[in-house]
Amino acid sequence: MTETTLTLADAQALGEAILSRAGAEAGVAREVAAALVAAEADGQAGHGLSRLPSYADQVMTGKVNGRAIPDVTVPAAAAVRVDARSGFAYPAIRIGLAKAAEVVRATGAVVVSITNTHHTGAVGHHVEGLARRGLIGLTMNNGPAGIAPWGGRRALYGTNPIAFAAPRRGAEPLVVDLSMSKVARGKINVAAQKGEAIPAGWALDAEGRPTTDAKAALAGTMLPMGDAKGAALVLVVEILSAALSGARFGYEASSFFTGEGEPPNVGQFFLVLDPGPFSAGHFADRLEDLLGAIEAQDGARIPGLRRLAARRAAAEQGVSIPTSLYQQLQARR
Amino acid sequence: MTETTLTLADAQALGEAILSRAGAEAGVAREVAAALVAAEADGQAGHGLSRLPSYADQVMTGKVNGRAIPDVTVPAAAAVRVDARSGFAYPAIRIGLAKAAEVVRATGAVVVSITNTHHTGAVGHHVEGLARRGLIGLTMNNGPAGIAPWGGRRALYGTNPIAFAAPRRGAEPLVVDLSMSKVARGKINVAAQKGEAIPAGWALDAEGRPTTDAKAALAGTMLPMGDAKGAALVLVVEILSAALSGARFGYEASSFFTGEGEPPNVGQFFLVLDPGPFSAGHFADRLEDLLGAIEAQDGARIPGLRRLAARRAAAEQGVSIPTSLYQQLQARR
Repeated sequence: MTETTLTLADAQALGEAILSRAGAEAGVAREVAAALVAAEADGQAGHGLSRLPSYADQVMTGKVNGRAIPDVTVPAAAAVRVDARSGFAYPAIRIGLAKAAEVVRATGAVVVSITNTHHTGAVGHHVEGLARRGLIGLTMNNGPAGIAPWGGRRALYGTNPIAFAAPRRGAEPLVVDLSMSKVARGKINVAAQKGEAIPAGWALDAEGRPTTDAKAALAGTMLPMGDAKGAALVLVVEILSAALSGARFGYEASSFFTGEGEPPNVGQFFLVLDPGPFSAGHFADRLEDLLGAIEAQDGARIPGLRRLAARRAAAEQGVSIPTSLYQQLQARR
Repeated sequence: MTETTLTLADAQALGEAILSRAGAEAGVAREVAAALVAAEADGQAGHGLSRLPSYADQVMTGKVNGRAIPDVTVPAAAAVRVDARSGFAYPAIRIGLAKAAEVVRATGAVVVSITNTHHTGAVGHHVEGLARRGLIGLTMNNGPAGIAPWGGRRALYGTNPIAFAAPRRGAEPLVVDLSMSKVARGKINVAAQKGEAIPAGWALDAEGRPTTDAKAALAGTMLPMGDAKGAALVLVVEILSAALSGARFGYEASSFFTGEGEPPNVGQFFLVLDPGPFSAGHFADRLEDLLGAIEAQDGARIPGLRRLAARRAAAEQGVSIPTSLYQQLQARR
């Protein structure tokens, strides 16, 4: 596979041009492109520039409203509600978290519940932004169905990512970012394309039976990380992201990848904490104690460091994407 | 193994007598005994009457203060802080959650952070109590170290249980309750006693190598559910329960099982939500939609139903414990 390297500025300009041409408002195009470029720079290609064609398709058909203005309300002292109005998630999350960062100084804790929203993208980025303001963030997100309830065979839940971030003293924020499926669906796609088997434990076939056949897995469901326990956690994520906000559940949500159909209108949940009132100032010290105990062990690592290394490399060298994707993007700008 | 059956009332009286005789204040003895009996009734023997001898030992040596009065403060509008003062967790959690249930009517969301606390017991019970008041509860707890950071070989984190509960319309609350280790340590203990091997993937030996030797596993560390992803989640639980509250980390905490040593002084984290302000009343309907979609699948189940069935059976027939434990308890009353 040949690759083409772009500077981050060129990638940003390309993304903005494609989204604007599709009909997105200029500010929305800028913000969405920046989010995709940031994901690409962190090595999260699945949430990066590869999304541009399908995002643009969705703006063109109106499945995503590229001109939506999110509606933010504060229905109780520590409760922020955002209706993304079937627009992109990025502006809705930014506006909701900005409100939370303001409110939390008086309340210590705030929950932001977002409805009628779309693909969260690189979930860690949203909470990382909170940590850069000295706040702790925890997020749970649903998406189009890929995971079945434990023992079942029809997908109900998305791969429902969770992310967490906390500010560190004199270091980049700690960021934990993980989807609840055992592996990314993309890995099964790749195996199916190559005609290779997948390891047992990744997926079930359409009848709910364990399978190592990648094609059968694509027709079936993804197994959750942690099996039965993980399936229970995926349910919790589905409830907090979608039942609380009144969004669509995974099995009701349309694809994030195609222009057809109604808006996915999924949900997002954020908990925002100011460590100050809880910890009387000791949080930063205690976090360093714990992270130091991890680093003191050979072979153990603080999560997220690989992503930061990728980000530094991308800032200097740009990002490399498949040349076929690059050509596709150039044709759409 | 012969078993002895007790009525719940007899089990309660026995527990109260043992804890009072060890030196616990009468109200504390009653509350702690009730928590252990409730766990036993739910089929969670590991958090049930088997804990009485070690709890009593800890009261006698002062490792747990059986007369502690938890200190509750509200340092910000949606932040509740509890110092359990090295007493049992049950009163500290009850008092903290009662305050949260009061505060949350105005704030929509509250975080309760508990420090200098002890064994959480059956974690689901605490959040189930919130759901019975119409609230959503999520809790994260640390404990004495059993799980190593991913790639490492020394245990830093407890098995760090998470529990979640939500109120249901016309049904018992939904309760999800899980520890973050792949299996309970008790299962490895049983295998070691029988001289049996354990399945691969449960534990590592003291050198951090995968092992199927139960004795080597007991000298090593427990693997987290979900492997590398689960290890990242265990870290999040450790931070929210212990770094936020200023409690001891797993690797700093003494055992919950012996009378020796300093108080464990671990931490607990609770998020309490009033679904009303977030959902404009639709939460109950949407939760039923989702749970109905689970129940519609052959083989899939709503979590927690087995526990409710055990509870109903125990209310009628009492609880059965090993006769050796019964004799040990009778000798200590």
